[in-house]
Amino acid sequence: MEFGFIGVGAMGGPLARNLIRAGKNVHVYNRSAAGRDKTLAAGASGIAAMSMADMTSCKVVFTCLALPEHLAEKALGPDGLYAHMQPGTVHVELSTIDSQTAFTLAEAAGKQGVAYIQCTLGKTPAHAERGEAPLFVGGDQQAIAALGDVWPLLGVFNNVGTVEAACAVKLVSNLVGMANLAVLSEGLRIGEAAGVEKKLLLRLLGETGAHSFQLDARGKNMAEGEYAPPRFTLDLALKDLRLGCGMAHALNVDVALLDMVFARFGRGSAAGLGNRDCAAVHEV
Amino acid sequence: MEFGFIGVGAMGGPLARNLIRAGKNVHVYNRSAAGRDKTLAAGASGIAAMSMADMTSCKVVFTCLALPEHLAEKALGPDGLYAHMQPGTVHVELSTIDSQTAFTLAEAAGKQGVAYIQCTLGKTPAHAERGEAPLFVGGDQQAIAALGDVWPLLGVFNNVGTVEAACAVKLVSNLVGMANLAVLSEGLRIGEAAGVEKKLLLRLLGETGAHSFQLDARGKNMAEGEYAPPRFTLDLALKDLRLGCGMAHALNVDVALLDMVFARFGRGSAAGLGNRDCAAVHEV
Repeated sequence: MEFGFIGVGAMGGPLARNLIRAGKNVHVYNRSAAGRDKTLAAGASGIAAMSMADMTSCKVVFTCLALPEHLAEKALGPDGLYAHMQPGTVHVELSTIDSQTAFTLAEAAGKQGVAYIQCTLGKTPAHAERGEAPLFVGGDQQAIAALGDVWPLLGVFNNVGTVEAACAVKLVSNLVGMANLAVLSEGLRIGEAAGVEKKLLLRLLGETGAHSFQLDARGKNMAEGEYAPPRFTLDLALKDLRLGCGMAHALNVDVALLDMVFARFGRGSAAGLGNRDCAAVHEV
Repeated sequence: MEFGFIGVGAMGGPLARNLIRAGKNVHVYNRSAAGRDKTLAAGASGIAAMSMADMTSCKVVFTCLALPEHLAEKALGPDGLYAHMQPGTVHVELSTIDSQTAFTLAEAAGKQGVAYIQCTLGKTPAHAERGEAPLFVGGDQQAIAALGDVWPLLGVFNNVGTVEAACAVKLVSNLVGMANLAVLSEGLRIGEAAGVEKKLLLRLLGETGAHSFQLDARGKNMAEGEYAPPRFTLDLALKDLRLGCGMAHALNVDVALLDMVFARFGRGSAAGLGNRDCAAVHEV
């Protein structure tokens, strides 16, 4: 069975390499040749793909791109992915996107007889590389079941039901994480103004009801003002906040706090911090 | 050496009992006799105290009360605690209070020759009962050092420096914790509106960058709408948000998110949820 993989960046790369390490034939397409070649180097069964036309032989094509508009550009249109995929094949979309974009893609895929699965990803590139990234999978249930042998190669499978649910789990995860970060930033500022030594404050907060993943992951960066190299850029966080708040509004959910966090990340990007780690929101 | 303990409620009770279990003579004063007697039952060395005058023989008096105004009432005035304590004794204040109140107390104590120590408390009553509550200790450093043998009986000692720092650590801890809870609530609403099964969403968020102490401690309560019995009431959380945001403003620290969280808890109290667990903010 031939696989296709479009976009082998921070999260897509590890998953594509997991397939290649498992000996699967994977046609790899990437914007930069260097990124593509890093993934091809993971084993003998990777094949360089130069265009969407090279995906014609694939039974399953994965996409993992940074922005919803990149996806629409690659998937739709007369020379897009769906124009080249055969009826009865499957598109597994891995990007962090809003459900509106996902619905548009699923509908277009359906018109070509292509099954659509949304599979958003949790945790970090390092987890993904070890096959430990949680997969939040929703969409065509028959197609999901048919890939039962493939999911364990990619990560830790969770069936969340629908395409919309898969988008929501990932966006809510990033919304809550980034909001916890912004909240921690306000707390650290109070502590600093009150003369509490920053690292001591972080350690003590970590032992109380203030503890969070983001405190462990980024508290030290905020305390020390160190935001490079970025593990997850402020601009990518801003994108997820935009998509997540947009999805909340489309669902008529009041998210007053998250809207305010979104605005603060927006100010961070406007201040030129977009390519720093998202912890740089502490500087805004 | 005689100890005094004023206020043996949820957190004060366990600490007073730890002293009694260690065989210390502790004069116990409490608003309700039932609460006092529960603490006296911890050992033979507890003594019922009926008024502040009964603290005259104490070298060290602890206070642990719910509200800053209760403290001012007990400590100040012609028949207050300080009027009865001897020069050279120590007041260890354990309540969650703002630094403005703490400064007022410390100044009044100083005028009587009483050393003032602020020692705020982390974690839960269960931790406190086992002597595992973190102590955030600041103030008169000579007095703090002189109690070197006493701190380990109470909990896990951390010297944070000043009275202000001790207030700040505790308030920041509760501010960040309650804000993380309010953020999680918005996230759960998005997930629910998108059709994600609530308990599944909580489990998946717990495996990602959205993880927090509050998610583990109260996510299930929010998902199931179960807010009784309360572990920490919404009204007590509201009090801490009021004190914490007030302290931030007094220090000229912008806490736009925390102010919004405070307002939401205020709406919860106004809606009659004040005596439910703080997770009931999800219903506002």
